[in-house]
Formats: sequence, structure tokens, C-alpha cells
Amino acid sequence: MRDVAIIGVGLMKWGELWKKPLRDIFVEAALNAIDDANVDKLDSMYVGCMSGGLFVGQEHLGSMLADYLGQKNIPAARVESACASGGLAVKLGYLEVASGMSNIVLAGGVEKMTDVDGSGATAALATAADQEYEVYNGATFPGLYAMIARAHMDKYKTTREQLAKVAVKNHKNGVNNPYAQFQMNITVNDVVNSVMVADPLRILDCSPITDGAAALIMCDFETAKKISKKPLVKIIGIGHATDTIALHSRKDLTTLNSTVKAAEQAYKMADVKPKDINVAEVHDCFTIAEIVVSEDLGFFEKGEGGCAVSDGRTEIEGEIPINPSGGLKSKGHPVGATGVAQVAEIVKQLRGEADKRQVKNARIGLTQNMGGSGGSSMIHILKGEL
Amino acid sequence: MRDVAIIGVGLMKWGELWKKPLRDIFVEAALNAIDDANVDKLDSMYVGCMSGGLFVGQEHLGSMLADYLGQKNIPAARVESACASGGLAVKLGYLEVASGMSNIVLAGGVEKMTDVDGSGATAALATAADQEYEVYNGATFPGLYAMIARAHMDKYKTTREQLAKVAVKNHKNGVNNPYAQFQMNITVNDVVNSVMVADPLRILDCSPITDGAAALIMCDFETAKKISKKPLVKIIGIGHATDTIALHSRKDLTTLNSTVKAAEQAYKMADVKPKDINVAEVHDCFTIAEIVVSEDLGFFEKGEGGCAVSDGRTEIEGEIPINPSGGLKSKGHPVGATGVAQVAEIVKQLRGEADKRQVKNARIGLTQNMGGSGGSSMIHILKGEL
Repeated sequence: MRDVAIIGVGLMKWGELWKKPLRDIFVEAALNAIDDANVDKLDSMYVGCMSGGLFVGQEHLGSMLADYLGQKNIPAARVESACASGGLAVKLGYLEVASGMSNIVLAGGVEKMTDVDGSGATAALATAADQEYEVYNGATFPGLYAMIARAHMDKYKTTREQLAKVAVKNHKNGVNNPYAQFQMNITVNDVVNSVMVADPLRILDCSPITDGAAALIMCDFETAKKISKKPLVKIIGIGHATDTIALHSRKDLTTLNSTVKAAEQAYKMADVKPKDINVAEVHDCFTIAEIVVSEDLGFFEKGEGGCAVSDGRTEIEGEIPINPSGGLKSKGHPVGATGVAQVAEIVKQLRGEADKRQVKNARIGLTQNMGGSGGSSMIHILKGEL
Repeated sequence: MRDVAIIGVGLMKWGELWKKPLRDIFVEAALNAIDDANVDKLDSMYVGCMSGGLFVGQEHLGSMLADYLGQKNIPAARVESACASGGLAVKLGYLEVASGMSNIVLAGGVEKMTDVDGSGATAALATAADQEYEVYNGATFPGLYAMIARAHMDKYKTTREQLAKVAVKNHKNGVNNPYAQFQMNITVNDVVNSVMVADPLRILDCSPITDGAAALIMCDFETAKKISKKPLVKIIGIGHATDTIALHSRKDLTTLNSTVKAAEQAYKMADVKPKDINVAEVHDCFTIAEIVVSEDLGFFEKGEGGCAVSDGRTEIEGEIPINPSGGLKSKGHPVGATGVAQVAEIVKQLRGEADKRQVKNARIGLTQNMGGSGGSSMIHILKGEL
């Protein structure tokens, strides 16, 4: 397989974008990536989107978005793994280039979620859980992650305040991210007194509903050296694994098997260990998720994730900075775009372009993007050639 | 890239399967493919499905179906390109093996469409057209293909009876396909007197709404030689292209650009010409589609597709047999599964296992799978090593 570089990243301001149709949101991010990469013609495109059908009544996004991007006739496809759809698009972009099928590939993601009413969005998201056994019985994602939180608190004495600290840290980071949906600081007090959603998770433990898109331009490393004017970033590890879609089929709610398995693959392929990672973007759809994932990635011993965040070990100045972008919590969570935006943040970090969010001496970064309650996980490890 | 073989095919009886949930339909076809391939453990899986969200309220099929298939934890993803979702899964399975990322891969497709009411299914399918400019103004697929038919009849003098002949031929072939939804002969008289859907297309010009699944097992050619007990079939050409999603943006309604472009790629990669193809499965979602596609693939001169079918040139005994399986028209059209089942039929033809549908001396076969009104096309060329 050929070495694959990321030579362009494109984002746009996320939020409630009622005046912009899905195609415009995607094209804005994609054109930013194309400009950043210094290319004009794409060979192919993959777009992560969880549910164009349920959110905006539009499937067949590959065809539509290639056309509206001015790249008519290229091979273009939409891929889906619930909230890990963006990470999946990155993997497929990698495969397309690594295999030699294409040279210049766009891997993007998009979701427009705020134009449906509240229960509509939650119901659409719930299709990432087991419809016949979980959703039919009344479970939606806040409830499923609340069960994970309860189990972790019971087994490892993780505290309500430690959950809150995840949200406080990520909002603090997000203040410095101009693309974030919520650029505002919050306190532990704000979180623990915010409205209850599913005990113990309160509204400030939950990532928001968001409209947004993100895009990357990938190409083979030899071409990248010729055309890129930016420091090069290489994909050195990929992990992709699934788990039972339903929580009730798992032996232990306090660990996410798909993340553990995907991490094993990615570390092996990259030939690095957790301690070699300088910066990580992980899937904090709920505060408890970041704690569990930080353990399952091997950054901390099992059960220490709560203490790690309250001790400041995951701050930008800490030993393993997690979610310098603000994470899903502050940046927003347009589900199909999230995994792509995570990679975009790591590219910026490895290029030294992260401004006030910059992690010092970042050479190797990791992204972890997750579908459902961990039914699927995508992990990417990137190395900067600074 | 490594050479890729298809060593297993799995189908199941398609139809109105109200008693079987989507997961059971998929697992039935997948287990048949696994048995046929003489393997037990998969390395990864791709599933084509157009809209699990709109049809059955279930996204995240990669996770769920890998689990229910007894292949927990493998990388598994759902991919979508409207009615070409199955063909897309085949391409990605190919890439996964060719690149060396996986050795044994399942490429499958599934759709469960008949449990929603009639307008619900048509509305869900319409999300493959341009929601903001076509569907908003009242267009659904019968109407869009009717416009293509009118344009072709006007420009090339294609007749109402020639359209009917496509349906008659495909039903004649489908009588010999035990998996087909409608195993019955029809006459030209039946077609031209059937109920009007969108002038000039009548109900017997339209493929049906169907529940069904199909699966293939793919692996690298070296492994295939060791483990397969069947004649080997190699993928020698792949084409994938898009076009404007909306008909109104095209200069000419009588040709499908995505098929023309994808065919160019596939013929070039396979180093064959249209006249080298011995058997083809093409996307006859409506009778006019088979006529247009048979021209765009280069089997006939532009405008000759109507005469070709009425002259019997596309019969099983003809110079280029098209849709020996019965096509979408008789076999049914569970949209995510269709592109996979087309490849399954060609594998059977190249292995000499097609029974009463067998095309004599079939060595090279082609499949053409299409999304929307031609907004995307996937083409595969297969060669038997008999």
C-alpha cells in the first residue's frame, strides 16, 4: 500500500444553520479543504453522513454533492456508521489512495440536524441503537450512556464532579476554536445544576444537535511532497472495529470493546504505543464517553479516567491533551462530520496551526470516532513531518 | 493491487417477507455465501443499503449485522449510493482486498421495503432524486424515467412495444430463477394494457418493491486458489461514476452519463471491449432503463436499443444476453441488494451453475447498477477461470 498524506483541511462555522441547505454547508467546508490543499480537480470523494434520509429527506449524497462541488462525474459515495460515519469516510479515502485506485481524494462529512423538531432529531439519532430491542422499549442515547455512567460510577467510584470536569475542560478549549458552536466557558457548578436529561447525565453533559460539515484532501505521499505548501501529515495507523449494537448484549458496560479492538489495530499498524500519542481528539458525545474512551485507548489504567480529568492530566498543558478543539461538547456534533473534523484538528495541531489551542511539540496525534453506544469505532493515528 | 476473486455467492427468496426482520433476511443470504465460499471467519464486511432509516427505522447496520451474523468485532460498514448501494459495497470489498487491508471480505446488500405503506416506499425512494428541485415539485422515479422514455421515443422512434419486450424477456428469464419475486411469464399485450403509472410507463414497465438480501465472499486470488472448491471468478474491471442528481441539469435525457463514464473506466481496467462481454446484468428499474443502458454500455449503437430487444438480440440465446436472472423486473428490486445480486448471477453464469438460465460459453460478464435516474453508476467486469 502507498503512504497517504492529508494535504488539506476544511471546516466552517458550526451551529444552527437554518438558512443554509445541506449542499451549501458541505460545499463550504469542501472548498476550504480544496483551497488549503492547493488542488482543483478531485479523483474521487467519500462523504460520511448518518441519516440524510431522516434529517433532511435526501439520500444519494455522493451524486448530489459531487455535482454541487463542481466535480461532476467523479466516483463519489456516501458511507455510514452512525456517529462514526465521518471516521469511516476517512478510512475509505485512505484505502482509495493507498490502493492506487485514486490519487487525490476528498473525505468529508456533513449533517444537518436542527431543522427537525427536538424529538425528531433524538428519534433519528436513536436509529443508531437497536431499533427492535432498545428503542422499541423506550431507550434513546442519553439513557444508554446514563447506564454506562452509572456502571462506571459504581465500579470505579467515578464522581458526578469528574463527569462535569470533562465538559468544563472541553468548553474551555472550545473558547479558542472559531468554528465551535458554543464558544463559552462553563463551571462544574453550571453542569451539576443544569437540567436533568437521564440520571446522572444533565444537559451540560450532552453534546448538542448541530448543523455542520468538514472535509479533508488526501493524496499519496509522493504527490503530496510535490504539490503541498504546508507541513505534511501522514496517516500511519487505522483501526476499525464493531461491537454488539445493543448494550444488553455486553458483558461489561464500563468498557467499549470496539474502541479497544480498533485501538489495538491502529497502534500495531502505526507501531506506536499509547504513551507515544501527543494529542488526541476523542468522541465525547456525553461526558462519560470521554472518560471511558481515555481508558480504553490505554492513556490511563481502567477506572482512572475520572481522576485523570479532575487532576488536569488531559488539559492542553497536561500529559495527554484530549479534545483541544473543544470536543463534540463545545464544538458541536453534526454526526456525519464529527470524525472528519477530529482529523482536521489533529492535522492543524501537527502542522503547528492550532493558534491558542496549540499543543506544544505535537508530533503524533490520534482520533477516536464512535457510532451508537460504541457499536462501532474508527481510530486514526497521524504523524506530522514537521 | 492484488487480484481479487469472488469465491462465494449467497441469495435467498425475494418477495414480501413480512415475517422476517431485516437482520434475518441479511443473515440468511450471508450464511449462504459463507457456506458457498467454504470459509467461516470474515476479516471485514461492507453492506449496501439505501435507507434503513426511512424503510425500517434502523441505521448503523454494519454493527448490527456483523453481530447477528456471528462475526462480532470485525470492521463492518454500511455504504449507500441509492439503488447502486449494492454495487458500491462490491467496489469497497474489492478495494479492501486489493489493497491488502483484509483477506476475506463479505460484500452484501439488503433492503426491507414492503413493510411501509405504498406512498411511504415511493417517498423513501424519491430521496434518491433531488429533494429540493425534483421531489418538491412532485417528481418521483416513475415520472423521471417516463421523461427519459418520452425523450428516447421522440429522438430514436423507440416504440411502446419495444419497452414491453424488455419486461416480457426478463419475466421469461425469471421463470427459471428460484429466488425471483415474480416467476411468471407475461405478454406484450399484458404490459401495454396494464395500469398506467406515468405515461408511457405502465405498472408492468416498473420493477417491484421488494424485501431481500444478497451476499458475496471476496478474497485475494492466491488465497482463493487454496480454499475454494468452485471454479474461480476474478474481478477484472471496476467503473464508478456520478452525474447530476437532477434530470433538469442534463443536456440530453436519452443517455446516462454516469454509465458511459463508468463503462469507459471498467473496460479500460479490464482491457476488454463491449463485444468481449458474453453476458450482462443491467439495471432495468424501468423497461426504458435497460434500453438506454444497453446502448450506453456500447452493446448497440445509440438509438438501437429498442430494436435490439425486439429483434431478440438480448435473449439468453442472443448475441449479448441481458438479465438472464430475470433482472430487477422479475427478480425484484430490494434496492441495496440489487447490485450484489447482479454480481452473484454473473458468478453463477461464469461458473456454469445457472441451470436453465445458463448462457453458453460465458467467460466474461458485466454488471451495471444505477442510483436514482442515473446520478450514480457502478460497473463490474468479471472473468471466469473455467
